[in-house]
Amino acid sequence: MRNYNFCSGPAALPEPVLRQAQEELLDWRGMGASVMEVSHRSAEFDAVAKQAEADLRELMAIPANYKVLFLHGGASHQFGMVPLNLLGGAKTSCDILDTGIWSEKAVAEAKRYGGVNTVKALVQRDGLFAISEPASWKLDSNAAYVHYTPNETIGGVEYHFIPETGGVPLVADMSSNILSRPIDIEKFGLIYAGAQKNIGPSGLTVVVVREDLLDQALPFIPSMYRYKTHAEHGSLVNTAPTFAWYLAGLVFQWLKAEGGVAALGERNARKAQKLYDYIDASGFYSNPIHPSCRSRMNIPFRLADESLNKAFLVESEAAGLMALAGHRSVGGMRASIYNAMPEAGVDALIDFMREFARVNG
Amino acid sequence: MRNYNFCSGPAALPEPVLRQAQEELLDWRGMGASVMEVSHRSAEFDAVAKQAEADLRELMAIPANYKVLFLHGGASHQFGMVPLNLLGGAKTSCDILDTGIWSEKAVAEAKRYGGVNTVKALVQRDGLFAISEPASWKLDSNAAYVHYTPNETIGGVEYHFIPETGGVPLVADMSSNILSRPIDIEKFGLIYAGAQKNIGPSGLTVVVVREDLLDQALPFIPSMYRYKTHAEHGSLVNTAPTFAWYLAGLVFQWLKAEGGVAALGERNARKAQKLYDYIDASGFYSNPIHPSCRSRMNIPFRLADESLNKAFLVESEAAGLMALAGHRSVGGMRASIYNAMPEAGVDALIDFMREFARVNG
Repeated sequence: MRNYNFCSGPAALPEPVLRQAQEELLDWRGMGASVMEVSHRSAEFDAVAKQAEADLRELMAIPANYKVLFLHGGASHQFGMVPLNLLGGAKTSCDILDTGIWSEKAVAEAKRYGGVNTVKALVQRDGLFAISEPASWKLDSNAAYVHYTPNETIGGVEYHFIPETGGVPLVADMSSNILSRPIDIEKFGLIYAGAQKNIGPSGLTVVVVREDLLDQALPFIPSMYRYKTHAEHGSLVNTAPTFAWYLAGLVFQWLKAEGGVAALGERNARKAQKLYDYIDASGFYSNPIHPSCRSRMNIPFRLADESLNKAFLVESEAAGLMALAGHRSVGGMRASIYNAMPEAGVDALIDFMREFARVNG
Repeated sequence: MRNYNFCSGPAALPEPVLRQAQEELLDWRGMGASVMEVSHRSAEFDAVAKQAEADLRELMAIPANYKVLFLHGGASHQFGMVPLNLLGGAKTSCDILDTGIWSEKAVAEAKRYGGVNTVKALVQRDGLFAISEPASWKLDSNAAYVHYTPNETIGGVEYHFIPETGGVPLVADMSSNILSRPIDIEKFGLIYAGAQKNIGPSGLTVVVVREDLLDQALPFIPSMYRYKTHAEHGSLVNTAPTFAWYLAGLVFQWLKAEGGVAALGERNARKAQKLYDYIDASGFYSNPIHPSCRSRMNIPFRLADESLNKAFLVESEAAGLMALAGHRSVGGMRASIYNAMPEAGVDALIDFMREFARVNG
């Protein structure tokens, strides 16, 4: 039996993807071996790699002057890779928009490699957390780049607009909302995303980078951190995380079959809206984020009586609703509802929450 | 149908491991989710992580003053991580024993971070490649460490002894022979191994490091490259490559059930000996490595008439013997026979080679 899995990451994968992976786990494409036992330099794996890139380019409408990289590691590696790759040119500082814990991790690592102008972008509005007015941001027109976190997985804060940077390259940590809605890639210099939320299993990170940004690395950057090297070798400088890459490819195929990012975007908006609507109307649950910047992917909420938290978690788990505990740094609850979460899962969650509130409210 | 897979890496995994992974791919331990969909911070994954470490410690007899790390990436990342972690103390140079392509990659990256004394350790002896006499090595007693490659995957050269360094920490890239025979860990300062040969799928690297070596990193080391940080956080600084880690744990369990590293060591010696014996006696195939340092894991060989290479590859593949082509840099053939290759696979290869030689010789 499969539960509805609200884990923030590693997150639920589409069931058809797992079924296909299961089916061919010991004998992939009649090779008499698992895809994870096949050389990363074989014609068969090369076809997987090329198809995954082509599908991602199609799904996200990535222009030809951007490279798509499939790299080892997670977003935490990118916190170092981004400044190490981008702060070694004429411009040696960056702006970072701070909307929470993940932004702050990017700040801490970037400071080790250059100047960082941290722009506090989270404020209180109407007693709720909100992204501040862009007009109030003091950005540096001479920065090498502006970094932001389009969706804060822990806080549940999401930008529903793309920041204007006046020509300064925009860098986005899209780990938790990549492929969740259409975006205009040309507004970005670099996008990165750890795979384990909307792409595949952990251990893989996708980077989309504009070609003109590949020549400004710091001299002491580790070779395996250098985007240009990976771009020149089709992300096969060394043995890639091939099984994760293959699964990402299956997820991209599934996304296409589901109607692509536009269709998913509509579904995600609907899923999130009905959960927020229920929370707001419940009188029992609350979400601390201003409606203008509520995340469609990660929905934190609290019970009116927090002494019921444990009961909520035990009973929801028993009802087949997994991993609803909030991040350890903030407590409460959190429902992560990425692309792979079906609308029926959100409905089941709301039904459970309603019944729990009725009994305990 | 499963073929005998002689790929050098990503390499064959034990079939029972893949069968278990397949069985529980959609519903792991009754959780209603795949292990790859479960939080790396959950109690369930924590148990996997702890068991894998305990089993590896038992299999390799790792003393308590060594940390065991499960990291993202492959050995190519370690080529940078080792010097970045070890050349920032009072001693700023290292010795590297050069026995081939993988040693040379370690040299190239280490040179970017400190002094490197490259010791050519591969010579010709009796018309064959051989590891030079240790007495001839000019090692620096003031080096931060001595790095070597116990088994050269491409060349097929393996040390059947552990170099004496007179107290200088010994660092070993054991990617292709870890767990293939018993070793005395206390002779090493640091061991690393990309998983995709003898441990699990690609995207995971195991590091075993003596605690006293954790405090000599260069100041500009990326945070995710720092061993100490991973050691302090049980390799869960960020989202680990959980599925690869889980599979590694299944491989360790399989190794224990097979009798552990001592039993595998005997089997590996037997497998390699019978293949070398056949090659040497064949009059049709040849191996260019001196018997004193022939690899038990990777056995390169050439056909007397290389115009038959293509036929050899086509016919061996048709016979269910996969991936026998040599590395693209050297050509010829190579049979990689790691722990997961059963003795019957080596027998089948010899039978095929004998018949091919009879027909074409």
